Amino acid sequence: MVLVVGSVALDSVQTPFGTVTDALGGSATFFSVAASYFTDVGLVAVVGRDFPSEDIRMLEDRGIDVTGLEIAEGETFRWSGSYDFDLNNRETIETKLNVFEQFRPKLPVGYRNADYVFLANIDPELQLAVLEQVEDPKFVALDTMNFWIEGKREALLKVMERVDAIVLNDGECRELALESNLIKAGRAILGMGPRIAIVKKGEHGAMMFAGDDCFSAPAYPCDSVFDPTGAGDSFAGGFMGHLANSDDVSEPNVRRAVIYGTVMASFCVEEFSVKGMSSLNIDAIKRRFKDLKEVSHFDM
Amino acid sequence: MVLVVGSVALDSVQTPFGTVTDALGGSATFFSVAASYFTDVGLVAVVGRDFPSEDIRMLEDRGIDVTGLEIAEGETFRWSGSYDFDLNNRETIETKLNVFEQFRPKLPVGYRNADYVFLANIDPELQLAVLEQVEDPKFVALDTMNFWIEGKREALLKVMERVDAIVLNDGECRELALESNLIKAGRAILGMGPRIAIVKKGEHGAMMFAGDDCFSAPAYPCDSVFDPTGAGDSFAGGFMGHLANSDDVSEPNVRRAVIYGTVMASFCVEEFSVKGMSSLNIDAIKRRFKDLKEVSHFDM
Repeated sequence: MVLVVGSVALDSVQTPFGTVTDALGGSATFFSVAASYFTDVGLVAVVGRDFPSEDIRMLEDRGIDVTGLEIAEGETFRWSGSYDFDLNNRETIETKLNVFEQFRPKLPVGYRNADYVFLANIDPELQLAVLEQVEDPKFVALDTMNFWIEGKREALLKVMERVDAIVLNDGECRELALESNLIKAGRAILGMGPRIAIVKKGEHGAMMFAGDDCFSAPAYPCDSVFDPTGAGDSFAGGFMGHLANSDDVSEPNVRRAVIYGTVMASFCVEEFSVKGMSSLNIDAIKRRFKDLKEVSHFDM
Repeated sequence: MVLVVGSVALDSVQTPFGTVTDALGGSATFFSVAASYFTDVGLVAVVGRDFPSEDIRMLEDRGIDVTGLEIAEGETFRWSGSYDFDLNNRETIETKLNVFEQFRPKLPVGYRNADYVFLANIDPELQLAVLEQVEDPKFVALDTMNFWIEGKREALLKVMERVDAIVLNDGECRELALESNLIKAGRAILGMGPRIAIVKKGEHGAMMFAGDDCFSAPAYPCDSVFDPTGAGDSFAGGFMGHLANSDDVSEPNVRRAVIYGTVMASFCVEEFSVKGMSSLNIDAIKRRFKDLKEVSHFDM
């Protein structure tokens, strides 16, 4: 079982290919749906009274345990943003935290002995509060963003000392390490606590740093990227889902997990919201895993 | 033997790590030095009377045939540029074409039956003029840049119809194909003539498109990038050098050639000018090839 603490939101997104309003989103949502193809998922987040019951049903239909999804007085966290023509630049139009502003994660008793824990991108102080509530997890991974790197660096460094892995994008990696060379930056992150640093590079794939090892994973060659929202969290969901399911955090298996993360991100970006991941099966996932093996293969 | 037609220049470069003035540069130079570790190289270019004789000696010492290096009245092509702190953005300070302005490539008779030909980044009309002079090459590859894509599109499309491969960077690929999705763009390039399209992505590695196949090559994890000037031409030199040496243009071997290109680019960027490639040996090159295998490996 993997436990995720993060946001459940309603997203309004504009891409060159279409527009969607109040679609199911949020870091914990994308993570949960992606991870649900691999293992049991417990989701801890908060939504408002306005949150559509069919969205909760969809999560339940995917077997996601929503015992930890608090329904609070007020409105659900809303985010709206737009992407430019090549989908590489995102502009946030509006962020309304609403009930998320008062979110103080409280783990259901049954989650406290979770072996695999993902701290999605929330205030590092809340991430620390989650760690206080779990007993002796086998593997904890952390996401963050420039907002916290700049505004709550001290708290973030404290969380980092207590996690096994950090997942962040290349810009965040450089900013956190204060180092422009990505290889040096990735290694510097390891000096801050985590034994594994995973750097997501969008259409350029991902890198993993662990000890002196460096792994370069190809992106899935998507010729129909529709909406990149949630790709990073879907990546994390595939990554943690595979680790939890195999219960193996050896380096070769962590590499495999990076590839499963890549696969889930590739499904995510093909449609709005979680639609690209809503009706998959393990065969479709394994097919893309195999495709990535072929895409990156060369003989000595 | 591989024949290259391009520029030999004197570069003045500023990077965050240092400055160099009138250092040996130019597309044909970087290409030749990189390719010289794999096969015989014939270089066709022009320099002025001011060109340092020790630079010619260096090329000769690497076994490069400079019969086709014309020494003309006037000054050598000079380029100066600077890189910003993360080396991703380059600003051209000045370009003085000098003798290069009147360059009309004329192949020495002995080069006309070259099997492997690289048309480095020059005016596509000159590239066509080179193709008129070679007899029945086995494999021709082409480099170009945004300047020609925008200014001489018609001529460029004519060259493309007559080559086996094109090597360009991701921005150029998108611009040439008029398509923002890189996978679609790479495939669209194949519809313009070449059966192989290689897209260089700097620190993010390279991709190769061939038929329905797509190959994603990792970058070499360089933690000491000093000066990116010439990386693309060094890549092309390793790529073509390996193909010419093995005389095998099958798809698996073209993938290997992409990796050798990646290796040569990684040596190039570690020092100014061609210094990073001046005293290598095939063992050092093969070691990095093997490193790249490990960097990109994962088990099913």
